Amino acid sequence: MDVTSDLAHFIIETQPESIPETIRHEGKRCIINFIAVAIHASRDSSLQILLDIFREEGGQTRASILGNGTQSSLQNVALANGYLGHFDDYDDTHFPTILHPSSPTIPAALAVAECHGISGRDFLTATILGIETACRVALAIHPFHYDKGWHITGTVGVFGAVAAAGRLLGLNTSQMVHALGIAGTQAAGVREVFGSMSKPFHPGRSAQSGVLAALLAKKRFTSTKKIFEGRRGFTSVLSTSHDLDKITYGLGEQWELCNIGLKPYACGVVNHPLIDAILALQERVDAIPGKVNRLEARVHPLVLELVDRRHPLTGLEGKFSFYHAMAVALIDGTAYPDQFTDSRVQDPVVSALRDRIMATPDSSLTEDQSVVTLTMHDGRSYTESIHHATGSPENPMTDVQVNEKFRVLTSKILPKHQIKRLLNLLWDLDHVLNIKDVISLSTLNQLSNKQL
Amino acid sequence: MDVTSDLAHFIIETQPESIPETIRHEGKRCIINFIAVAIHASRDSSLQILLDIFREEGGQTRASILGNGTQSSLQNVALANGYLGHFDDYDDTHFPTILHPSSPTIPAALAVAECHGISGRDFLTATILGIETACRVALAIHPFHYDKGWHITGTVGVFGAVAAAGRLLGLNTSQMVHALGIAGTQAAGVREVFGSMSKPFHPGRSAQSGVLAALLAKKRFTSTKKIFEGRRGFTSVLSTSHDLDKITYGLGEQWELCNIGLKPYACGVVNHPLIDAILALQERVDAIPGKVNRLEARVHPLVLELVDRRHPLTGLEGKFSFYHAMAVALIDGTAYPDQFTDSRVQDPVVSALRDRIMATPDSSLTEDQSVVTLTMHDGRSYTESIHHATGSPENPMTDVQVNEKFRVLTSKILPKHQIKRLLNLLWDLDHVLNIKDVISLSTLNQLSNKQL
Repeated sequence: MDVTSDLAHFIIETQPESIPETIRHEGKRCIINFIAVAIHASRDSSLQILLDIFREEGGQTRASILGNGTQSSLQNVALANGYLGHFDDYDDTHFPTILHPSSPTIPAALAVAECHGISGRDFLTATILGIETACRVALAIHPFHYDKGWHITGTVGVFGAVAAAGRLLGLNTSQMVHALGIAGTQAAGVREVFGSMSKPFHPGRSAQSGVLAALLAKKRFTSTKKIFEGRRGFTSVLSTSHDLDKITYGLGEQWELCNIGLKPYACGVVNHPLIDAILALQERVDAIPGKVNRLEARVHPLVLELVDRRHPLTGLEGKFSFYHAMAVALIDGTAYPDQFTDSRVQDPVVSALRDRIMATPDSSLTEDQSVVTLTMHDGRSYTESIHHATGSPENPMTDVQVNEKFRVLTSKILPKHQIKRLLNLLWDLDHVLNIKDVISLSTLNQLSNKQL
Repeated sequence: MDVTSDLAHFIIETQPESIPETIRHEGKRCIINFIAVAIHASRDSSLQILLDIFREEGGQTRASILGNGTQSSLQNVALANGYLGHFDDYDDTHFPTILHPSSPTIPAALAVAECHGISGRDFLTATILGIETACRVALAIHPFHYDKGWHITGTVGVFGAVAAAGRLLGLNTSQMVHALGIAGTQAAGVREVFGSMSKPFHPGRSAQSGVLAALLAKKRFTSTKKIFEGRRGFTSVLSTSHDLDKITYGLGEQWELCNIGLKPYACGVVNHPLIDAILALQERVDAIPGKVNRLEARVHPLVLELVDRRHPLTGLEGKFSFYHAMAVALIDGTAYPDQFTDSRVQDPVVSALRDRIMATPDSSLTEDQSVVTLTMHDGRSYTESIHHATGSPENPMTDVQVNEKFRVLTSKILPKHQIKRLLNLLWDLDHVLNIKDVISLSTLNQLSNKQL
């Protein structure tokens, strides 16, 4: 079984025109979504830590950090953009594996594409192949790998990054085999760091490792040719069980990109069907907090396992509290990053409503389902059932919703006209001659410089 | 149990004068040995791959690559020196765990020490504490971790690197706790890549990851406070079983540095008792290849697990072939790096002798033992038993042997008088005011520049 070389062949030899239009469209949505969340996160003060280290350690100005516009080496920029993409826990999810494929993959593709003036079409193709690669590898080891305590986005992310970067750097198939080996032997990231800056650091470091692996392999640095099938390779060592067929089965014909959902709400994905139910109730009832007696939910048992935190203390904790997610959704009518700030979490009105929420586990429900009953003080009650949460593969965000998310997230960094131009350019990626045009529109400074 | 914070406290608070003189002497030997092998490896053409990437990607000139003299960022230099230290598989071994602690640890200490003009005394102290840290963590997860397929030098190496770099960067204990977390969640490296450039890349990448973790933590980047004891932390996720007591038991009183051996031969350590046996046989018999009928060995089972490669194709592969190690030892009477070149591996006389070697696993033997029987064509046969291989803690290389190894390895790069001055300086490390003086003497160019 030549899993590694078959996969390398797929990454290098797939022609853009052989990728179905629906998949190319899905790839664009991943890119638009990633750029939106990264630009939004670039306002966080923790980015400055990375920037200070980049300045002290140095780096050629080869690529740009989204939103912020600072230029540095391919590896530094891949690290920073990967960090930003995952910082708000608001990127995307490959539903069969809980992998967040875009945050490690797209930064690697983007850095190389900017540096080498790659076309939008080639950048999109590399991104799609990178994401497909990461999802396939994730499938081969899920759920054993995640259950053991690995953060699959950190570990498997290196393969998405190296595939995308390696293709754009012009690796041949043999070099890609080695590149996958160099990437795989850097795979890292444990779940114990969840709740700290080290979580978004994972896809950042994966993006960087993938870029480094591609740069090394391009210069004929060597590794194993069997990182997947080898007895001491990635799949054997990092998982208690695996199925290598998942990596190559139907490659180029079946696409895992179909199973990726973009996050409509800026919080843990198991909250999403509950938020959907609240927003649907809001459409029917004028449910201001003062009129609400209680909210009763039936949920998949995982909700109580993962996000049963009635009174979170920080915005970050709020992302993992279904009480908070439901309360802000009812009060604010939305669940954007602004609903998961420290101050929103500490708001007494929100806190009081959280006290009137309860949930019962119901194992007949799937993870993207919920049933919520709203009871008013006057005794009237209303029930909403969600069958597939928004952002799940069966109920994806519409392109209109993606655009709206993009506008909301970028609005604090970029002027309106620039957001509009950037969004138009991203939907029209196949006709972008040079990805630098996208980058220029993704930061305020770059545009200002151009306009001066 | 506060394993992580106890270890951080040890790393940060230990005073140089509380470290026994024998341990400081052992630390010096590790440094001298490491610098020798790194300088020797700097002649290999694969270093140029790293240098090309450093040039393209850029980096401030903060520290220097041994032997070569190229200056770059702390992270780049740590990567390169870690690569060089392990390139020839000729560094050192912590015998209880097969960890090679110096190659990931010393480059991290050296880069920070050079950049900040640290004294020899402080550099030595940080190196000792880094090595002790790495060995302790290795003990906690050995043999389960290595048996699973991890390259322990790659994984555990991050802790040696971050401890040494973090101490020299002046982290406080709380920052060191986070630094250990950031380092641990970057731990990587699988054994499938053995026999390729990716093996020495492991300690290089670990040294770099450790430096990055220390730089991040110094600026208050956050991570878990329980990378060792956490349910989803390093020890749980990367090992099927562990004993955390090994990390903290007798810390500061018992030193794992006592259990480190420096390698007398330039190849996988499990080959060493076999080489010893061959050299001992050579003392008794004039065993030219034409007279040898066969060589039969009894070996620790790990020999067949790790180095059972009858006909290696490259010098690198030759280091992991007990057949090759025994054959060249018999023909050349030594096992220096010159015995593990591509041409030596491809030599038909060597190859023919490899075909006449066989080995049987014997679990009554320890890893530093072997029994070899040489049978001549005329029917005579001779047996040698090795009880403790040269370079094992029970049969260490003498300081005289270490000096000789240093001279042999550096002689192709540095002039004789410079080698002598460098060696004197290293033995007198406690009185070196600025580690830059050591660095200057470790490269040809630097000295030439100074002399101009």
